[in-house]
Amino acid sequence: MSAPSDKTSAGNFFEDFRLGQQIRHATPRTVTSGDVAVYNGLFGPRFAVQSSDVFARKIGYPRAPVDDLLVFHTVFGKTVPDISLNAVANLGYANCRFLKAVYPGDTLNAVSEVIGLKENSNRKTGIVYVRSRGYDQDGVVVLDYVRWVMVRKRDETAAAPEEHVPDLPKSVEPADLGGACPIINAEAFDTALSGSPYRFGDYKAGEKIDHVDGITVEEADHMMATRLYQNTARIHFNQFTESKGRFGRRLIYGGHAISLARSLSFNGLGNAFHIAAINGGRHVAPLFAGHTVFAWSQVLARAELPGRADVGALRVRTIATKDRPCADFPIKSGDGDDPAVILDLDYWALMPR
Amino acid sequence: MSAPSDKTSAGNFFEDFRLGQQIRHATPRTVTSGDVAVYNGLFGPRFAVQSSDVFARKIGYPRAPVDDLLVFHTVFGKTVPDISLNAVANLGYANCRFLKAVYPGDTLNAVSEVIGLKENSNRKTGIVYVRSRGYDQDGVVVLDYVRWVMVRKRDETAAAPEEHVPDLPKSVEPADLGGACPIINAEAFDTALSGSPYRFGDYKAGEKIDHVDGITVEEADHMMATRLYQNTARIHFNQFTESKGRFGRRLIYGGHAISLARSLSFNGLGNAFHIAAINGGRHVAPLFAGHTVFAWSQVLARAELPGRADVGALRVRTIATKDRPCADFPIKSGDGDDPAVILDLDYWALMPR
Amino acid sequence: MSAPSDKTSAGNFFEDFRLGQQIRHATPRTVTSGDVAVYNGLFGPRFAVQSSDVFARKIGYPRAPVDDLLVFHTVFGKTVPDISLNAVANLGYANCRFLKAVYPGDTLNAVSEVIGLKENSNRKTGIVYVRSRGYDQDGVVVLDYVRWVMVRKRDETAAAPEEHVPDLPKSVEPADLGGACPIINAEAFDTALSGSPYRFGDYKAGEKIDHVDGITVEEADHMMATRLYQNTARIHFNQFTESKGRFGRRLIYGGHAISLARSLSFNGLGNAFHIAAINGGRHVAPLFAGHTVFAWSQVLARAELPGRADVGALRVRTIATKDRPCADFPIKSGDGDDPAVILDLDYWALMPR
Repeated sequence: MSAPSDKTSAGNFFEDFRLGQQIRHATPRTVTSGDVAVYNGLFGPRFAVQSSDVFARKIGYPRAPVDDLLVFHTVFGKTVPDISLNAVANLGYANCRFLKAVYPGDTLNAVSEVIGLKENSNRKTGIVYVRSRGYDQDGVVVLDYVRWVMVRKRDETAAAPEEHVPDLPKSVEPADLGGACPIINAEAFDTALSGSPYRFGDYKAGEKIDHVDGITVEEADHMMATRLYQNTARIHFNQFTESKGRFGRRLIYGGHAISLARSLSFNGLGNAFHIAAINGGRHVAPLFAGHTVFAWSQVLARAELPGRADVGALRVRTIATKDRPCADFPIKSGDGDDPAVILDLDYWALMPR
Repeated sequence: MSAPSDKTSAGNFFEDFRLGQQIRHATPRTVTSGDVAVYNGLFGPRFAVQSSDVFARKIGYPRAPVDDLLVFHTVFGKTVPDISLNAVANLGYANCRFLKAVYPGDTLNAVSEVIGLKENSNRKTGIVYVRSRGYDQDGVVVLDYVRWVMVRKRDETAAAPEEHVPDLPKSVEPADLGGACPIINAEAFDTALSGSPYRFGDYKAGEKIDHVDGITVEEADHMMATRLYQNTARIHFNQFTESKGRFGRRLIYGGHAISLARSLSFNGLGNAFHIAAINGGRHVAPLFAGHTVFAWSQVLARAELPGRADVGALRVRTIATKDRPCADFPIKSGDGDDPAVILDLDYWALMPR
Repeated sequence: MSAPSDKTSAGNFFEDFRLGQQIRHATPRTVTSGDVAVYNGLFGPRFAVQSSDVFARKIGYPRAPVDDLLVFHTVFGKTVPDISLNAVANLGYANCRFLKAVYPGDTLNAVSEVIGLKENSNRKTGIVYVRSRGYDQDGVVVLDYVRWVMVRKRDETAAAPEEHVPDLPKSVEPADLGGACPIINAEAFDTALSGSPYRFGDYKAGEKIDHVDGITVEEADHMMATRLYQNTARIHFNQFTESKGRFGRRLIYGGHAISLARSLSFNGLGNAFHIAAINGGRHVAPLFAGHTVFAWSQVLARAELPGRADVGALRVRTIATKDRPCADFPIKSGDGDDPAVILDLDYWALMPR
């Protein structure tokens, strides 16, 4: 008999992080048409550009690109073992930009830099701000985003690192959008095939859209998605432990709600074919298996992209709820909170002009 | 604040259809080996031609073709947002012919023509007959079928379109079979590898086959399948709404039972490697998660294909049941109805001679 | 009306087997990147070599190989309809060697030889020993293993075949390891990307590793996995029948626990990138949906591979449990049995030196 091994990683705790620290994450991942198919089976997206090589080629892509959110979740998943294995809560995202289209066969890896640290007053936890970048096999950045997360301390008495809270933009500038979208032939964008007649010019700021439909989530669904992303956050997978935990059950990965809301948003935003940036996002209430997710969106702004006549950008706020249809556009912010709201997402989507 | 958007599609209601109307459906879809893998994970088919590139090549295919039913469901799924989003019931199929083999990498789209309309006497609903065609990237028809569906009216007082009920063949003629099957080398069809020693000549009309096994359906299974097909019919996905609906729960897509029955039928029809045509099909009772599906088949007829010595066609009637083994061949038609029967399918399958 | 068909296979019973009998199994299967994606979605493995074409190429593979266990389950699945359709229990594995790497696009088939037979004293069942080999499209053996299984007799009064119990090695010799692993460039094995800093030289015999995490199994998960392998064992799929059976519910395929334990073992054995051989394995208790699987491992031995300076082999014993964390390394053997133990697996894993 010998002593237990020290080979197991317990993840980083708050006091393990240092400002400016660079973390190269495991595990590199070749994204395949198989991953795309599993993603499609889990969320049922219907955006034509990602669904059809023929449609994508006709407008100027070399082939159908991988769904933006599958890229996001894959890169995000890599950061979990180092950043958020001991997280209490994933607090928010900012300045997330999709910089290069990803195609089946590309291999993604991720690197994060710690850009902010702030101990909480209870000294039990602290907030870690990281800027994470996803790279392809050529070392080109495909995705760049900031997230902040509340992480437990291993030892409450440990000294806190120097406090620094980064200055984060409220939204991505229109001039910084579009890197992951080639110049497209907007005339060749066949709106009968794409499933919606509405182009960039047909939307106006302030417009609200109820996406009508709902999708019920099963335990098998969200676990399969999260395993596909190689996301190892324990709270999603382990009913034995979670049955004694905070919620009494497995918590669904926040990104699952984002993907469901995006799929639902096809009904109303069918030509918003590319997420160019995520300005911010908050998971305002937990989602569990058995819940039915609904969503609605509001167009916050419209922007032309400097030098591009092919596409325009809609700034969209999408709200997702659980077990609550969205015909009356529920929100959760200050007065009039609706406890059914689970997601408040602010992003830029590109549409053909 | 601004008014709600009109960007959301509510689907077509009975009074929206016109005889002769042509509808080009969204969303084109490139079918990949990933889609095939998800399909295999959901149904477990074991027909050698679709399972092995090597087996397929040996008998004369360029590679393993995509399962016929995955092609069917994909094309069918495209028609849902335009044809059956407001359907009360999917009433039947006829004259469904598989005209060209589909391979991974092919891109499918669909077009439907309204070929019949008949308002029901209650004036609340009407029956819509559509002929739907699936096309590949070269514009070649791969699938052609008729289905009819009962659709709600938006407004009960709306004038009904002129009534027309199309004349539909009871079955596809043998001379019209085989377009999707290249001339094969029947001698190279290795029956040890294919899993059944029985060829076309070994079956006789009237023969009944109990497929013995049963497969229990989970909510996660049928939703994943139906999302994979980009089928948006609401009743399959939304437990919140359906809990207050007709059944109190999500209804499983009828095609799910067809695929399960087909997979089960391998045990007894292992060399019936290709569905050349579906003569007719009725979903005679609803299927829900938790049910176990069983199936049996009867050979209705045998037919040689004009000019082809390589394959013969069996006309097969396959009955599927829920929570009821089929050793005594239950049916549901007129006297002696068995409420456990869920599917009554009549199709032509090709077998090597 | 005609008599029931004899086309259905009831599988082989104990008295159907003959010593030396060779069985070519159906159905050949082309393994695709889609299969890999479904497997990843079901188990979430994170070993870099199988996850990234770029990582694999950098160390000397032509591309990312298919996960060893997906190869194992695929070959195993083919043997089920002929060997274990009427099995009472899968008793064990021995001398399992992975002989050639499998890549997406390869086509697998399987052949078994009956190498042992022993009727049980109750005369109702007997033990069948088979040596099964998986072949690729070129007829090269990729996998070779022995398993033994308790099979029902069709007729208790049937004469038993002559008894023969094969002599099986307790473990595979180090000299017989590594056929499926090309000579790698161990220096190019980037341990930041692979997710663990520990190489072959960092492990010592006797070392115990708690893999910490747990994964809860759903019915949809294990059925999808087992259908993906085209494994037709009835007890996994049919709740209607099993509700009246031995356990009152569907029994999960034993290989499911092996794959879960392997994925969990990444935390502690992150660079054990290839299973070169399985010395033995026993499913010591049944696993059902709803259970959470945990695992721990002990390094039984370390071995250099003759003539190879690139990789070394760890002999690892991995124990998996249900609903029981493994911090105190539970076992089930003789005194001190722990009923939570479900799997006791002994294998050789290769690691970079």
